[in-house]
Amino acid sequence: MIREALNCGLKLRELAAEEAHEDFAREVCSGARGFIVTRSLLETICDTRTPQGVCAAFEQPEPVALEALPERIVALDGVQDPGNLGTIWRTADAAGFQALLLGAGGADPLSPKVQRAAMGSGFRVPFCHAPELAETLIALRKRGYRVFASDLSGADFYARPDAGEKFVLVIGNEARGISDAVREAADCRVKLPMRGGAESLNAAVAAGIMMYELMRGR
Amino acid sequence: MIREALNCGLKLRELAAEEAHEDFAREVCSGARGFIVTRSLLETICDTRTPQGVCAAFEQPEPVALEALPERIVALDGVQDPGNLGTIWRTADAAGFQALLLGAGGADPLSPKVQRAAMGSGFRVPFCHAPELAETLIALRKRGYRVFASDLSGADFYARPDAGEKFVLVIGNEARGISDAVREAADCRVKLPMRGGAESLNAAVAAGIMMYELMRGR
Repeated sequence: MIREALNCGLKLRELAAEEAHEDFAREVCSGARGFIVTRSLLETICDTRTPQGVCAAFEQPEPVALEALPERIVALDGVQDPGNLGTIWRTADAAGFQALLLGAGGADPLSPKVQRAAMGSGFRVPFCHAPELAETLIALRKRGYRVFASDLSGADFYARPDAGEKFVLVIGNEARGISDAVREAADCRVKLPMRGGAESLNAAVAAGIMMYELMRGR
Repeated sequence: MIREALNCGLKLRELAAEEAHEDFAREVCSGARGFIVTRSLLETICDTRTPQGVCAAFEQPEPVALEALPERIVALDGVQDPGNLGTIWRTADAAGFQALLLGAGGADPLSPKVQRAAMGSGFRVPFCHAPELAETLIALRKRGYRVFASDLSGADFYARPDAGEKFVLVIGNEARGISDAVREAADCRVKLPMRGGAESLNAAVAAGIMMYELMRGR
């Protein structure tokens, strides 16, 4: 994870390593402050029960500006479970989405649980806060984005209109789904078919299916 | 969940409810033993921190026999995280898969964590134990099933051969993937494209994308 963060251009501030990892610490630490610490001190610093021998503090990445948003975006309207947020981040990276747009009321994107579930994709795919998500989506539509919102009262996802070059996929809160304002702001509300008795899908699974499908043939 | 289990034909043995839920308890309890209990007793019985006021014990469903397996199956080769197993179960139900085939070394399908993540789909989609999963897959191929195995060294999933009428999708362990024996037993090893920097997907997300894609147009 530390190498990954450095490769992605994040700036290392401080690093603490057990003696066994001194070589690694010297290699990556150029310019930053490094410490060799005992196991018990490392366990106090880290929030995992069995830390892997090295931990590091990086400068928090700057959110991307709204004006600089790329062509393919996944927007989260209150996704609260850190595991879901991190997993969506990881899947967005793999599917070829280029930014996360975070509405109000969701999990903290820089929390350790989110970043662990993101498996390094949090370093690669930038995020942008959009506390007034519905207004942001309307502004993006004016700039030529097509906005798809996942919604249990939506139309068949597989019969959706063409996404064009620039698009946003909106995923709602685990229990409540998307907000009324976002529902109105979207071009098109879509739902995956439910063939058995299940009424809905896990938010990260639904996001994954839709992201990969939107990227088919691109 | 209790109504759902009854609707799916599971047999209720015992039920404990707080006084506020006595009407519900009488309604569903026909023949089974019912108890009105205090909040503190309910908290002792349940493994959730804030139980919802009623809990029930059902007879464990019988696994489906190998000979009676339906046409569309998802097989798990050592999926260990209870959340992943439950989420795959829920997604299998929604996608239209009809049974779960469980190899050795995975999470306990009847554990509360798995069933909570399955959101009732554990009552609808039957499972079958296959401790020798590779041998079972070979037997299924002889009966006309096509066996796709998700594998990071596999070929492009979107260029796979036609699945035909009867097929199995195999999902491997979160860290190790599928076993060598299962790799050899499969017709075809498949991998979802990884466009960004991510090296893999969460097991439940990969399973969801592949299940929905295998069911397209059916």
